[in-house]
Amino acid sequence: MPVRFDESKGAVVWLEQTLLPPDKAEGRDETWLTSTKTADFIRALKRLEVRGAPTIGVFAAYAVASLTFNVPNGESDPIAYIQREAERIANARPTAVNLRWAVNKMLSTLEELGPTPSLEDVRKAFLTEAKTIEKNEYEAGKRIGEFGNSLIEDGTTIFTRCNAGQVACGGFGTAGGVWRTSWAASKDISVVAATTLPLMQGARITMWELERDGIPSTLIGDNAVAWKLANTPGKKAFVVGADRILLNGEVANKIGTFQDAILAQFFGVPFYVAAPLSTIDPVSTSIPIEMRDPEEVKNLLGKLRITTRTARAENPAFDVTPRDLISGIITEKGIARAPYSESLSALKGANPRSARRVV
Amino acid sequence: MPVRFDESKGAVVWLEQTLLPPDKAEGRDETWLTSTKTADFIRALKRLEVRGAPTIGVFAAYAVASLTFNVPNGESDPIAYIQREAERIANARPTAVNLRWAVNKMLSTLEELGPTPSLEDVRKAFLTEAKTIEKNEYEAGKRIGEFGNSLIEDGTTIFTRCNAGQVACGGFGTAGGVWRTSWAASKDISVVAATTLPLMQGARITMWELERDGIPSTLIGDNAVAWKLANTPGKKAFVVGADRILLNGEVANKIGTFQDAILAQFFGVPFYVAAPLSTIDPVSTSIPIEMRDPEEVKNLLGKLRITTRTARAENPAFDVTPRDLISGIITEKGIARAPYSESLSALKGANPRSARRVV
Repeated sequence: MPVRFDESKGAVVWLEQTLLPPDKAEGRDETWLTSTKTADFIRALKRLEVRGAPTIGVFAAYAVASLTFNVPNGESDPIAYIQREAERIANARPTAVNLRWAVNKMLSTLEELGPTPSLEDVRKAFLTEAKTIEKNEYEAGKRIGEFGNSLIEDGTTIFTRCNAGQVACGGFGTAGGVWRTSWAASKDISVVAATTLPLMQGARITMWELERDGIPSTLIGDNAVAWKLANTPGKKAFVVGADRILLNGEVANKIGTFQDAILAQFFGVPFYVAAPLSTIDPVSTSIPIEMRDPEEVKNLLGKLRITTRTARAENPAFDVTPRDLISGIITEKGIARAPYSESLSALKGANPRSARRVV
Repeated sequence: MPVRFDESKGAVVWLEQTLLPPDKAEGRDETWLTSTKTADFIRALKRLEVRGAPTIGVFAAYAVASLTFNVPNGESDPIAYIQREAERIANARPTAVNLRWAVNKMLSTLEELGPTPSLEDVRKAFLTEAKTIEKNEYEAGKRIGEFGNSLIEDGTTIFTRCNAGQVACGGFGTAGGVWRTSWAASKDISVVAATTLPLMQGARITMWELERDGIPSTLIGDNAVAWKLANTPGKKAFVVGADRILLNGEVANKIGTFQDAILAQFFGVPFYVAAPLSTIDPVSTSIPIEMRDPEEVKNLLGKLRITTRTARAENPAFDVTPRDLISGIITEKGIARAPYSESLSALKGANPRSARRVV
């Protein structure tokens, strides 16, 4: 679990994902950070110390819970203070809908507490809600894994983008949940991870997770995807995560996903998106794409300058894949297929206990 | 010109391309290396100190010429020695056909020198031939630029891969020759360069050359090509170089070119390959792809480790783009169009003075 809550301090504890993977040869183990401060939470989100849509949701929930433990002395209206700070956290990044979704879910518990709840009541309600969000994301990953595994035939080479495994997705994984479930079911699978410029989450995190799980894996450059598809015999499938899914089936995910989907279509390879229902945005009709600092593209991980200091660069963090390139969207309640406007609405509105496959 | 010959020492002088771009902030200017040794020539080729198919050809020609200045004392059969060493140079890398082509072209001048030429005669003949190869590659770039410019409409955004500019292509550029000619003709163009993992020639070299020429340019990640195509209004075209072209129209070029061509087709953007006739292989029916050290993918430029030390990675240096994805092949004698088996044969066999466009 990449995010924890320390109840003794009311602090959020998170795995610093920009420092992954650990490297014993350099004496570097996992780094965990702890804070009770809104500024640190926002920095952790913006710097991608905490990333991956479901994990961002869990982190935001605990960050909002943390606010209730740390209201400044003399604050005249603690609830208003918490709402203000929560709003700042929700605005840290624009694309992954889980951030806003989790903050809203936390704040909505206030409505059940009556007109003038005590801070103690709010604290209890928020902590309960945050734990529920965490538990639900983990279990969603498990169920996504089971639904997704039904799509993976024995002997499949699974292509993926960026990282949608344990650390990104609240402990089990969405795309990662699929291959972990297939591997646990003794299917003979392997996973191909694309490096994922500029922050290298495919190389840094997905490859590390795959090795820890003992799943056969291969790292390729972002520019070697077509070559690898053309040179991989046998069954192939793409399984990627998502940062926001519209009800019409459009999917925002890490930059590169769109071109992966085009390549999948060219090679006749199915392209699956794995995401919890919390990633489905039932309201928006378009997806804001976060444009990050061009320096990330020009000076890799802040350590390797690869172009002139004056070069112009563009750094979109995400792209949007059109629904007609997507073979299916794997959720914890079933697999949505086209037409997505119908299947996704049915899943998003469905009773949690009536898990079913929507065809 | 990225390669020179120092006649006083019989030495080859080359721009060390792995250290591009210069960075004044780090006190690093262009690095030029000089040698007369086969081992250094082979290292320069293998390490990509010298790269780009036409430049590789010019370098190999001067390297072979250098052999005639530096036959070891006591060598009983200098010609046989030169042929042996030249063969070693020709085998340094497998994909770019210009390497073998240039070495063969140099050695074939021996046939015109009679049965027992003096070393002095060989030296003169080789130096003349190497200078001719250099001059021809430069002039080929100029003519490729002119033919290519006829395809570029005012206002076009040109997408490219890796580097096919001045340093890659013997001083003027192939793909680079096209945009330089369009820019010189006052067309309102701009160029989008993809980073090009793992050795970053797009970021390091193409962006640097574009800035020196004052041409508007944008660097994107290898995984942002579809996003950039989708988000660039107006006219677009791909122009890339080549490392080997078969007579049937298949093109080997830097890894990523194949997927660029698939994306171009998806977006309805023309995809042009620019290369001199020396890059056309009239004999082979398939192209050997150089698989380079996986460490290049795992530890970027030998300086930035981005995955676990035990991760498995694959590092193809090139891929092969099928001919049906290629809108035209721009050579110094005209633009070949499908069916390539006819148009390329006509160009490759054509009289140098009868430059014409083959449709």
